[in-house]
Amino acid sequence: MRRIAIALVHHPVLDKEGATVTTAITNLDVHDLARSAKTYGCSDYFVVHPITAQRALVEKICEHWTVGSSAQRIPDRKLALALVRVVPSLDDALAALGGRDAVELWVTAARAVAPPLSFADARARLGGEGKPVLIVFGTGWGLAKPVIDAADAALAPIRAQRHEYNHLSVRAACAIALDRLLGER
Amino acid sequence: MRRIAIALVHHPVLDKEGATVTTAITNLDVHDLARSAKTYGCSDYFVVHPITAQRALVEKICEHWTVGSSAQRIPDRKLALALVRVVPSLDDALAALGGRDAVELWVTAARAVAPPLSFADARARLGGEGKPVLIVFGTGWGLAKPVIDAADAALAPIRAQRHEYNHLSVRAACAIALDRLLGER
Repeated sequence: MRRIAIALVHHPVLDKEGATVTTAITNLDVHDLARSAKTYGCSDYFVVHPITAQRALVEKICEHWTVGSSAQRIPDRKLALALVRVVPSLDDALAALGGRDAVELWVTAARAVAPPLSFADARARLGGEGKPVLIVFGTGWGLAKPVIDAADAALAPIRAQRHEYNHLSVRAACAIALDRLLGER
Repeated sequence: MRRIAIALVHHPVLDKEGATVTTAITNLDVHDLARSAKTYGCSDYFVVHPITAQRALVEKICEHWTVGSSAQRIPDRKLALALVRVVPSLDDALAALGGRDAVELWVTAARAVAPPLSFADARARLGGEGKPVLIVFGTGWGLAKPVIDAADAALAPIRAQRHEYNHLSVRAACAIALDRLLGER
């Protein structure tokens, strides 16, 4: 089984009008994605933010839950938040995994952005041997085009059986993606 | 396809020590479960809370997003939050769906609580004809025993392929459960 890491990108992402922006850290994104990552056996959860003060906020949240008072109170949470690695850019996340050439970079999007990699094919790929895979999620209205263009694959958009509406939170989308790729069958 | 509704219960649920407690409303639980419910075609999302002031808080959140200023700003969110129905007890949710005898009540739990209904069997059941199904999620450390004992079925705990750790947020667990039951395959 290959090493799998996730990243949550706060820049460059799109806003509602399609402009490239930087979004703010959301506390529950730190917790929920860390808990999902730990549950599904990911090695790392990169929180990507270009602003120093926002990275410091994430470090503070993680410290509170890994060595602060809450680490004693809820030890399960400590194991999850210990996966968090705070980095200024996606390149830094790639570097931490061995460099761009040593990593397969998969992006996710709520809309079709490229010939999509189906979850079934992606699941089979993860079961074999290969480079570490970094699965990237965007905040705001999704990852900006340069991130998507730089990827090795784009996972298919998550869809329901009977409905055309899709406005999942990134917390929900990440959980569903990891379950489709790594859940018990 | 049967009518499917979800409920998020804040009482009676367990705390870390197994005592029965009432948990506080979390804003992102209102949003995320509504967005997941809408994406997967659920008819209703019952937010169950026995305290009047906490129910008023949920009504205020929903009003802001369905008729207030944010309804214009993010119309997709309005469609999701329009599914929210705030009720004091699970009995009220059942009554809104036609009464206990007219509803199949399914509970969810992170631990095995009864002979579990597998997601594959549950998915097949939903595809046929039958009563409306109410799928119930707990906050805190999960639903209290009386709720579980009153259910017609308990969905199998969500597990990953390669890991024994399970400490998903309710936002993640609800998203995964709905995807397993109602996601595109």
